[in-house]
Amino acid sequence: MAGKPLILISNDDGYQAQGIRVLTDLMTRLGDVVVVAPDAPRSGAACAITPFQPVRLSLVEERAGLRVYSCSGSPVDCVKLASEQVVTRRPDLMVSGINHGDNASISMHYSGTVGAVLEACMKDIPAVAFSLRTRDQQCDFSPYEEVILQVARQVLEYGLPSDTCLNVNFPQVPKLLGTSVCRMARGRWITEWVPDEEPGKFHLAGEFRNLEPDAPDTDYWAMDHGMAAICPLHLDMTDYDTLLSLESLNNRMR
Amino acid sequence: MAGKPLILISNDDGYQAQGIRVLTDLMTRLGDVVVVAPDAPRSGAACAITPFQPVRLSLVEERAGLRVYSCSGSPVDCVKLASEQVVTRRPDLMVSGINHGDNASISMHYSGTVGAVLEACMKDIPAVAFSLRTRDQQCDFSPYEEVILQVARQVLEYGLPSDTCLNVNFPQVPKLLGTSVCRMARGRWITEWVPDEEPGKFHLAGEFRNLEPDAPDTDYWAMDHGMAAICPLHLDMTDYDTLLSLESLNNRMR
Repeated sequence: MAGKPLILISNDDGYQAQGIRVLTDLMTRLGDVVVVAPDAPRSGAACAITPFQPVRLSLVEERAGLRVYSCSGSPVDCVKLASEQVVTRRPDLMVSGINHGDNASISMHYSGTVGAVLEACMKDIPAVAFSLRTRDQQCDFSPYEEVILQVARQVLEYGLPSDTCLNVNFPQVPKLLGTSVCRMARGRWITEWVPDEEPGKFHLAGEFRNLEPDAPDTDYWAMDHGMAAICPLHLDMTDYDTLLSLESLNNRMR
Repeated sequence: MAGKPLILISNDDGYQAQGIRVLTDLMTRLGDVVVVAPDAPRSGAACAITPFQPVRLSLVEERAGLRVYSCSGSPVDCVKLASEQVVTRRPDLMVSGINHGDNASISMHYSGTVGAVLEACMKDIPAVAFSLRTRDQQCDFSPYEEVILQVARQVLEYGLPSDTCLNVNFPQVPKLLGTSVCRMARGRWITEWVPDEEPGKFHLAGEFRNLEPDAPDTDYWAMDHGMAAICPLHLDMTDYDTLLSLESLNNRMR
């Protein structure tokens, strides 16, 4: 790669969140950085887009090697705008996060942090989401910095296969015990709603249940054992195992 | 199955959309129906949830075999609320749509119609999304009714594997030429933003590019050839092909 790498950053907690500031500081060590992130928290935005309203983009910070934009849209809108209206060449790497809260197992489907990374993947930019299992808005990200830098350097050097991105989740620990390349654990959210005092009004809460807590090849197991969970995700959600068996459904319909 | 099947319906175009009304009429032929759908259009809502604001649920229609609820949340919120706060047993089938606009290839990632089905899948309800490639808000859904009923009957009778749901897309044709069980085509959205006259303001538009127009096993090919595209989706987005090759990344980091 000639010259400095170009690194795009987004998240779903907003451009002022602590996690994205830590990630930005780390990435400026590796290349020129452009941040395009929501103007306010967008947790749970998943891959949502803004099809029927205009989206606004504002430059909020600029110094050597770093430009930060705030965007009124979703995390996916941020990446779409960044790649088409902000950068003049395809970034060498896109990173998202560090999310305050984990996005492992099926929770990744709800995550705007992961949504941004899936979008970067659709733009053929090697992309990595970083999330920390915590409920604190202010926390110590220093135990994860070395792994973040290592993963970013590896992806800058070796790239990722087409249509593949990485979802990295950290347990909240004083010191990581290692890294694990792993699959999504099967899980379910249960008891999700707290009824308000006012009838017909509900608040989303819920409890995550890991359906395979003893499977050592899963992201939850890695986190439960003090390790960073590195899970490759693919844009193609086709269930190939079911494809063949569904042919019988198709034949019955003829 | 003892007694009438219980069928849950949602969508992302809102409970008043033409597509969900057609789908509701069809499903009342097969069982008792509960509709929980957004109070207004939520196109592009993907798997978004509403974590920080209350969500409201209102019964808007009730007659023998049918209850319709309007919900202030996202399509996924609708399914979460329905399964926990509305129905008293797990539905035998969940269907979503009929969406005005297709949700094939990577567009499924942005779709609230598909998001609702992924959520039903996470609740272990066999679930099918139906979408029509059209830009019309009013259109003739009659060419697709027979296939919708057939797919629904098949899924009621045989179920679907755990963590698998179906994404069905129709081309806009006077008569379907058949059905195809297929995979997601590889595709990309390009030229996505139209700048407003006001600087820093953009409108989302874009053009879809099918990267494999000649692949007959894809959803786009089926639709391009007048057929209903039936694509099984899996909740597990792990890229298993890449899992092994990433071990080398992991080893280099040690």
